[in-house]
Amino acid sequence: MSAIIEETTKSRASGSKIRTVCEVNLDKPASEQPRLHNRWHPDIPFAGTIKDGETVKIECVDWTGGQIGNNDSADDVKNVDLSEIHYLSGPFEIEGAQPGDVLLVEIVDVQPFQDHPWGFTGIFAKENGGGFLDELYPSAAKAIWDFEGIYCTSRHVPHVKFAGLIHPGILGCAPSAEVLETWNKREGELIACSKLADRHVAMPPEPRSNHAGASDPDLKGKIGREGARTVPGRPEHGGNCDIKNLSRGSKVYLPVHVPGAKFSVGDLHFSQGDGEISFCGAIEMAGVITINFKVIKNGLEDLGLKSPIYIPGPVEPQFAPGRYIYFEGFSVDQHGKQHYLDVNVAYRQTILRVIEYLRRFGYSDYQIYILLSSAPIQGHIASIVDIPNACTTIGLPVDIFDFDIMPTGPAKKLDIAPCAFETGAKEGVVNTTSGENSEHSFGGGLTYKS
Amino acid sequence: MSAIIEETTKSRASGSKIRTVCEVNLDKPASEQPRLHNRWHPDIPFAGTIKDGETVKIECVDWTGGQIGNNDSADDVKNVDLSEIHYLSGPFEIEGAQPGDVLLVEIVDVQPFQDHPWGFTGIFAKENGGGFLDELYPSAAKAIWDFEGIYCTSRHVPHVKFAGLIHPGILGCAPSAEVLETWNKREGELIACSKLADRHVAMPPEPRSNHAGASDPDLKGKIGREGARTVPGRPEHGGNCDIKNLSRGSKVYLPVHVPGAKFSVGDLHFSQGDGEISFCGAIEMAGVITINFKVIKNGLEDLGLKSPIYIPGPVEPQFAPGRYIYFEGFSVDQHGKQHYLDVNVAYRQTILRVIEYLRRFGYSDYQIYILLSSAPIQGHIASIVDIPNACTTIGLPVDIFDFDIMPTGPAKKLDIAPCAFETGAKEGVVNTTSGENSEHSFGGGLTYKS
Amino acid sequence: MSAIIEETTKSRASGSKIRTVCEVNLDKPASEQPRLHNRWHPDIPFAGTIKDGETVKIECVDWTGGQIGNNDSADDVKNVDLSEIHYLSGPFEIEGAQPGDVLLVEIVDVQPFQDHPWGFTGIFAKENGGGFLDELYPSAAKAIWDFEGIYCTSRHVPHVKFAGLIHPGILGCAPSAEVLETWNKREGELIACSKLADRHVAMPPEPRSNHAGASDPDLKGKIGREGARTVPGRPEHGGNCDIKNLSRGSKVYLPVHVPGAKFSVGDLHFSQGDGEISFCGAIEMAGVITINFKVIKNGLEDLGLKSPIYIPGPVEPQFAPGRYIYFEGFSVDQHGKQHYLDVNVAYRQTILRVIEYLRRFGYSDYQIYILLSSAPIQGHIASIVDIPNACTTIGLPVDIFDFDIMPTGPAKKLDIAPCAFETGAKEGVVNTTSGENSEHSFGGGLTYKS
Amino acid sequence: MSAIIEETTKSRASGSKIRTVCEVNLDKPASEQPRLHNRWHPDIPFAGTIKDGETVKIECVDWTGGQIGNNDSADDVKNVDLSEIHYLSGPFEIEGAQPGDVLLVEIVDVQPFQDHPWGFTGIFAKENGGGFLDELYPSAAKAIWDFEGIYCTSRHVPHVKFAGLIHPGILGCAPSAEVLETWNKREGELIACSKLADRHVAMPPEPRSNHAGASDPDLKGKIGREGARTVPGRPEHGGNCDIKNLSRGSKVYLPVHVPGAKFSVGDLHFSQGDGEISFCGAIEMAGVITINFKVIKNGLEDLGLKSPIYIPGPVEPQFAPGRYIYFEGFSVDQHGKQHYLDVNVAYRQTILRVIEYLRRFGYSDYQIYILLSSAPIQGHIASIVDIPNACTTIGLPVDIFDFDIMPTGPAKKLDIAPCAFETGAKEGVVNTTSGENSEHSFGGGLTYKS
Repeated sequence: MSAIIEETTKSRASGSKIRTVCEVNLDKPASEQPRLHNRWHPDIPFAGTIKDGETVKIECVDWTGGQIGNNDSADDVKNVDLSEIHYLSGPFEIEGAQPGDVLLVEIVDVQPFQDHPWGFTGIFAKENGGGFLDELYPSAAKAIWDFEGIYCTSRHVPHVKFAGLIHPGILGCAPSAEVLETWNKREGELIACSKLADRHVAMPPEPRSNHAGASDPDLKGKIGREGARTVPGRPEHGGNCDIKNLSRGSKVYLPVHVPGAKFSVGDLHFSQGDGEISFCGAIEMAGVITINFKVIKNGLEDLGLKSPIYIPGPVEPQFAPGRYIYFEGFSVDQHGKQHYLDVNVAYRQTILRVIEYLRRFGYSDYQIYILLSSAPIQGHIASIVDIPNACTTIGLPVDIFDFDIMPTGPAKKLDIAPCAFETGAKEGVVNTTSGENSEHSFGGGLTYKS
Repeated sequence: MSAIIEETTKSRASGSKIRTVCEVNLDKPASEQPRLHNRWHPDIPFAGTIKDGETVKIECVDWTGGQIGNNDSADDVKNVDLSEIHYLSGPFEIEGAQPGDVLLVEIVDVQPFQDHPWGFTGIFAKENGGGFLDELYPSAAKAIWDFEGIYCTSRHVPHVKFAGLIHPGILGCAPSAEVLETWNKREGELIACSKLADRHVAMPPEPRSNHAGASDPDLKGKIGREGARTVPGRPEHGGNCDIKNLSRGSKVYLPVHVPGAKFSVGDLHFSQGDGEISFCGAIEMAGVITINFKVIKNGLEDLGLKSPIYIPGPVEPQFAPGRYIYFEGFSVDQHGKQHYLDVNVAYRQTILRVIEYLRRFGYSDYQIYILLSSAPIQGHIASIVDIPNACTTIGLPVDIFDFDIMPTGPAKKLDIAPCAFETGAKEGVVNTTSGENSEHSFGGGLTYKS
Repeated sequence: MSAIIEETTKSRASGSKIRTVCEVNLDKPASEQPRLHNRWHPDIPFAGTIKDGETVKIECVDWTGGQIGNNDSADDVKNVDLSEIHYLSGPFEIEGAQPGDVLLVEIVDVQPFQDHPWGFTGIFAKENGGGFLDELYPSAAKAIWDFEGIYCTSRHVPHVKFAGLIHPGILGCAPSAEVLETWNKREGELIACSKLADRHVAMPPEPRSNHAGASDPDLKGKIGREGARTVPGRPEHGGNCDIKNLSRGSKVYLPVHVPGAKFSVGDLHFSQGDGEISFCGAIEMAGVITINFKVIKNGLEDLGLKSPIYIPGPVEPQFAPGRYIYFEGFSVDQHGKQHYLDVNVAYRQTILRVIEYLRRFGYSDYQIYILLSSAPIQGHIASIVDIPNACTTIGLPVDIFDFDIMPTGPAKKLDIAPCAFETGAKEGVVNTTSGENSEHSFGGGLTYKS
Repeated sequence: MSAIIEETTKSRASGSKIRTVCEVNLDKPASEQPRLHNRWHPDIPFAGTIKDGETVKIECVDWTGGQIGNNDSADDVKNVDLSEIHYLSGPFEIEGAQPGDVLLVEIVDVQPFQDHPWGFTGIFAKENGGGFLDELYPSAAKAIWDFEGIYCTSRHVPHVKFAGLIHPGILGCAPSAEVLETWNKREGELIACSKLADRHVAMPPEPRSNHAGASDPDLKGKIGREGARTVPGRPEHGGNCDIKNLSRGSKVYLPVHVPGAKFSVGDLHFSQGDGEISFCGAIEMAGVITINFKVIKNGLEDLGLKSPIYIPGPVEPQFAPGRYIYFEGFSVDQHGKQHYLDVNVAYRQTILRVIEYLRRFGYSDYQIYILLSSAPIQGHIASIVDIPNACTTIGLPVDIFDFDIMPTGPAKKLDIAPCAFETGAKEGVVNTTSGENSEHSFGGGLTYKS
């Protein structure tokens, strides 16, 4: 740093316990807990107050509010109610924060609950949620992960163990009325113009299952009609950015749009791969996040920010460069069609290359799809100007496997227990180069049951 | 590794000099040097023979064949003849390689020529080449970089110094006739269907400036008519993948399509950022690459490969996680239009966020555009399923600057000398949120003068 | 790994809480808690049983058993009773472990207690404990550290903040009777032969303050007479090795000497520098360690082990190479005397070089001594054969400071609050090159009040 | 950095070749080349002049001046003439440097000669040179290493390949007359007081084989009588510090004692392990170092320096923490004798633990001794205050082996070709815990034939 920084304002006595500003109850419906909410709106009442400079603990439910169970069936994933998501903790008043300021959020810790040491990764069914590869893998599937300290393992994806790059999928400050209006307008225009008949391209405000925190019924109604859904991250405030590296020790610089900031956080992930490709792709969990808050007055202008920035923390799990296998993908889809510099197509192809590589060891395609969603894979945009092919790469860390996956010859197939499936689904290897009759190889993304 | 590997076949006596299989002459036109070529075609004659297990040195010209000079004008960039690119060294026969095999290429060193210690980064003019931001930055511009050992600096982008993540932009084996036909067909269909009136979406075979190595005139004519252009990387062989981490010590596993492999390499980069966004975005240079070659018999099937994979080398320049600033971008373009999960839009927005941040310190937008193309920035796909917004991030290493760019407050503007421009161009700050009247915010990429 | 490893034996149901095998009570004297002990002896009764393959939580008091308070006086450090140390948790029976086996201890987490988020670093007075620099810094001093998630700060060492490389200072299996006899014999010979009049060179068995766990009075008496002190690490079992990198995720391979292994652990450190130079030099704390245990039958012979080995975990705080300043020291002491390849002298000199460097910024020598004991400094043996000078280096991470310590010119002195001192002690800068009338520049180490 | 730094003074035109200030001839005796010297003395004439801010190339012979051949006998090592060592390039005048300044030496590259791509590691015979383990391994032995780009391999230590952490073993500025006198006095006193009958503890000035650069005979005589030997590093100027991390990109801050600095450099190492334990332990080579020089006026006082400091470069070969096996050693020697906090004893024991571990795979002890001297092993001082045991650790990177050395069970013995030996020497496994009748387990270090 370039200058002597003022030392942290200490808001509590040395040695005293960190204050928990929000407790949740995992045995009670999320929809009944007043410090949770599931829409973005400037009028949701404050769920608590935090001092400028203070460090607090904030408890969070998992993003679905407990809809997914620790069992061996993916029927709960298949039937998940997406109108409920995401349950966030907040919004919190940060004393002194005003529009134009930047809220500096230092994530000093994220932990699962001690008595709830597990999480889940889901593949949503194509007709309810979908995901980046739903054209190829339309069934619902699931993996349960067990946590032991820094590590996780899953009976549904055997022979894998890794340290969590633990982080919140969502954090941000509430939009102002003007920002909210902008969101609803531009996303509404996309919905209006979309020609994708079988697929939702965005989610408009949805009164059903709206949880507006401690709002009274009138306000709740308004928020249900106007409140922005939490699914997309948005440039003005961040929100559901799902950045895997926003982990312990990270500093996030968030634009403030309303007095008091109205900061919310949730969607805790024990780990995630770049892209979070199966949509419910991270290792989703309930837990506690510990954050220090500081207000940077006039920060938006002083720092030239329009969207959040962040500085990663120092304790990311380390793999050496030489302990990754990198796969390359290009914007030629699985049907042989050439796309013009389309990174989405290239990234999907890169994922398919990893699936082809790993299935040689005995994993099902669905298991690999889950693994690439949840493990700390590195997804890079390699080249984006070499017409007509964009090129992306995925780095797969070899040390998360308890057997050798290095490219030294034919693979020895292991006898691997399956992941959880929806009732009646058949797993198996999908031919990833032909046969799928789809016009949507360029798209992907979420669909949901209305 | 999981098994005792056979030790490297030694193809030369201990202590003896490494053989140079291809020399180039920087004082002679590239088009006249028989060990160079600039099209992909199975019939280009071998430029030399390399033993299975051998390590050789291969000299390369810069990708343009010397069209760009070490001076302070970008007129050479503006007028570059893109029909000539890329001049590659090869194709080399690797003894014993057959279709279905994998060629294991270990890049044990890449160096600029000792007596030619400089390179260049160009921004192509919108009407000749273009680039990822050509709608906003249509003028030609240039930076010359000086090399000193592992480091580079530029009088055109002052206050920056970094170690090169030195690599070849292009390496691959020749396509078979069938593979070549596939390429020409699918890219031809894209060209036929394109509705982008002002922009080339792909480059068909081009007889003009075709350099077919040591071909006789008849063969040269055929190659000119059929040979695939070298601009795009392609899934079947890699080619111009422009992966910044393919550096010293990397092992690349390349599909073999023709007997003898016909391996070619070129487009050496002293450094590049993820995306190589300005198209001539890397630090382009002439130099020498040292490679060990090994043939993996039946490798394609045994390893389950359809596209190249690679394992990075161990000597990548290291920055700690906490010495990056990460910028976030979403698929809402600079005109406020919402795009559906479009990573290209998101990545362009991410770049604009960095430009806005760095211009506070006194750099021009063009300088930052050059810097982000050439410095080792990390471009990640963060989330790709949160409809309608894709999110990408760019990690900017702060330690490449000789002043502090950390987000600690208002920036102190430096007095910074400009980059090189085409005659008559005006530099300056572009308003990156409005005013540019473009319908192509979703596209980008290369255009060229016919 | 070279082979398909058997997956972890699961000793509990998926999703269930991790069992705590040992609870401690910070409000009760450590000497009265039956699952603690403070001597090494094969006969201390088991404090609990752990299955082969099981993961458990083990609570630990701080090494002194609570003698040091969160306050601004170092009188408690000055008067610490070292006959009580170290209070360890255990010994635990690991089912199936037998002499000749290796106990594989995977440290999956270490945490301070949530309601006790602080620790301490002490400089022992020269006449009671001493330390590596006690000839120069004979007074007792102290720093209290506050923990917030992964980070710590101290009002006694301002302008410093870093992530803990959290670890146990002590872990090991009980000695057999034969091993214990060897220890007492060889350390007794050292004591018998020592010519250092003013300094204890080793600590013989000491009945006073002996805590033998759940022993009955007779057994307790025996253990007091025979039990080895916990201060030194020892080659046969590890013990108090004080290795700063034995952190989260590390795997330690411990020799087993008695049936059931009798594993003990304690002396938890939030962080430590290489050497732990002030003796109470780590950031000492009470807390919880979570460990997975596996028995490797016949491991001693199969692995060729005589002493423990370990493999570090993946989440060590990361600093880039270029964010360290390395200091060099040689075996010429502060009086100008040449020593023969003496690494101890060289390391002391290296420390003094750091003290001289950092005191320019306003820190007192005692504060720097505390900082180098507790922050993750890298202490390397550089060269050990270049007669007569050994050379050692210390790497000081610059990013733990909130101001710039890079060697760019004269230092700007800060106004820095002092550390805690014993009553009557004067802090100040010590002339580290002359004047200290000492004959013990070659030695150092612990002294204590009898 | 804390402030806007002045950009590098450019001392040559952009794109021009870097000047070579010193050329050597490997076919001519080192003793006849006037830009080399092998003593430290303020009066050795300048070998060239370098501008403040300039970057130059400096060629160096290997430290022995070519005494060791690329062959399979270690007789040349056995009979090496140590009175000749080390041949350094210089001394160079740095314009403007004065006593009290600091010379900032940025090592921007180190390379072996292209036509001399090999180096050697030697174990000196106990009676001529010796080494850290000469009591146990008294014979001369040798390994020849072949270089290919960043990597090295050896027919004498098969199944190993690693990237060089390439660096100069020696660099420093000439002593003033006063500093030289101090050296001779304090080392002379050590020699006078030594009671080690069979072992040289330091090397006094030695007229034989003195090479005083371009001195006339009178001056050469004086330098032979007074000049300090180059073997030890010394605190006042650095010199032969043998720090393995002083590699490409490192910045070294060197005290200046005479006008013009009289900077010398040599003893280039392709790689070295911490301690350089076999004395000729690095991979010794001839080659070229490229350095940028800057003078920091009044730097000694402003930076508070008494000895050199350095900041490592960014391109160190990377291994993840989890890809090291760490061995622990304590200050109990191989005869079971307890030493008092003796780091030298602990480090020797740590080395013996690695030897015992690796010999299970079929290596001879001598091969492992060579490997630990030359490969980038990490040697740490773990704890230095836990009386009576010092503890050190050695981290052995597993990825330098082409087979799996992880501690997963009994080792499969390979059939490994031997290293080079002196005529008549027998290799074999030495019993490292008993039998060696030595009183010098506390010492070690260099001996030489008079």
